[in-house]
Amino acid sequence: MTDLVLTTFDWVPELPRGYVRDLRVRWALEEAALPYRVASVPFRNRGAEHFRHQPFGQVPWLTDGDLSIFETGAILLHLGERSEGLLPSAPEARSAAIQWLFAALNSVEMATLPWALFLFAGDSAETPGRKHLDSFVEARLRHMDGLLAGREWLAGSFSVADILMADVLRLVDRFDGLTPFAACRDYMARATARPAFVKAHADQLAHFAAAD
Amino acid sequence: MTDLVLTTFDWVPELPRGYVRDLRVRWALEEAALPYRVASVPFRNRGAEHFRHQPFGQVPWLTDGDLSIFETGAILLHLGERSEGLLPSAPEARSAAIQWLFAALNSVEMATLPWALFLFAGDSAETPGRKHLDSFVEARLRHMDGLLAGREWLAGSFSVADILMADVLRLVDRFDGLTPFAACRDYMARATARPAFVKAHADQLAHFAAAD
Repeated sequence: MTDLVLTTFDWVPELPRGYVRDLRVRWALEEAALPYRVASVPFRNRGAEHFRHQPFGQVPWLTDGDLSIFETGAILLHLGERSEGLLPSAPEARSAAIQWLFAALNSVEMATLPWALFLFAGDSAETPGRKHLDSFVEARLRHMDGLLAGREWLAGSFSVADILMADVLRLVDRFDGLTPFAACRDYMARATARPAFVKAHADQLAHFAAAD
Repeated sequence: MTDLVLTTFDWVPELPRGYVRDLRVRWALEEAALPYRVASVPFRNRGAEHFRHQPFGQVPWLTDGDLSIFETGAILLHLGERSEGLLPSAPEARSAAIQWLFAALNSVEMATLPWALFLFAGDSAETPGRKHLDSFVEARLRHMDGLLAGREWLAGSFSVADILMADVLRLVDRFDGLTPFAACRDYMARATARPAFVKAHADQLAHFAAAD
């Protein structure tokens, strides 16, 4: 019996397809081979029920029986409790995976997502703040590149940390930001070659295409 | 016997004092009344040992016996396992606190910290990307304001989520970004009036002042 329900939008414009954050949760669910179903909420009219589950009006959220969880980091940590393949249970390995899960979101994506907003807007104005932001991104990716040159996965074996970090890097790559960082590119390619990613990505594209 | 060691810089310039992220960990440690000591690493010459503990060359990190943890989110989650006052153990309350801990970092700070970089640089150029970033910040704070108007703390009782969210909002407030958001301001004032915050903040200022 399925008790995991992943909720995403019923439809999104062409541009974010393949990058909507339900992908991170689908990927984890596929890695762990956990049964789940996908539910939809309107993209255009976000109602009170939507905000009750996701207070910023975003997606995804996951329900697990009576529990409703938003934030992909929190969802992946929750799923990690169900699968050794997502989050090792040995204290040291577990701690390493959790710190890298946070690093993906708060040390790397905190720089790269706002940077992507500027690229998305076609904004190439070299203002002082923009220079700060570009340096912030460059420094974080440079450190990641040095680190990833020496390891296959972030925390020993593949874990939820790699799902988040690889997906964060995918968006950078979309705007050609990984060109100077060969180890980041190799890592991203390694992660997205996994069958669980391939299926999750195809499923997200099919989900949104079905609503066109 | 003390086995928790919090490592921060030996010195930082005037501007970031009171905002260095060891504050978040000090605050949690004070809330939980856990014994700890503070160690320092050079701000100016960051060595290989530093990068071994914190791969981005930042602070803080926490050692707990043999375990070394970076990322304040991961550290606070780790400390939460030791204190019901930081992280409730009942499944539903625990899940709520964890999702809000992630929301502070990945839904709010991911918008506000890059925004603060622009303010810090005195950058007021209204470029298309900057307008995206400002709207991103405004939307996240507006949702938080509506939500905080109806609750004292994010997840029922005070938790690690409030430490992170309140500290994220402090930086916004420093650049006058909370002016339109009365509930965010009240929440921040409520959080920072707690004796544990007051002590953590004073301790951080004293730590850096001692090195002048």
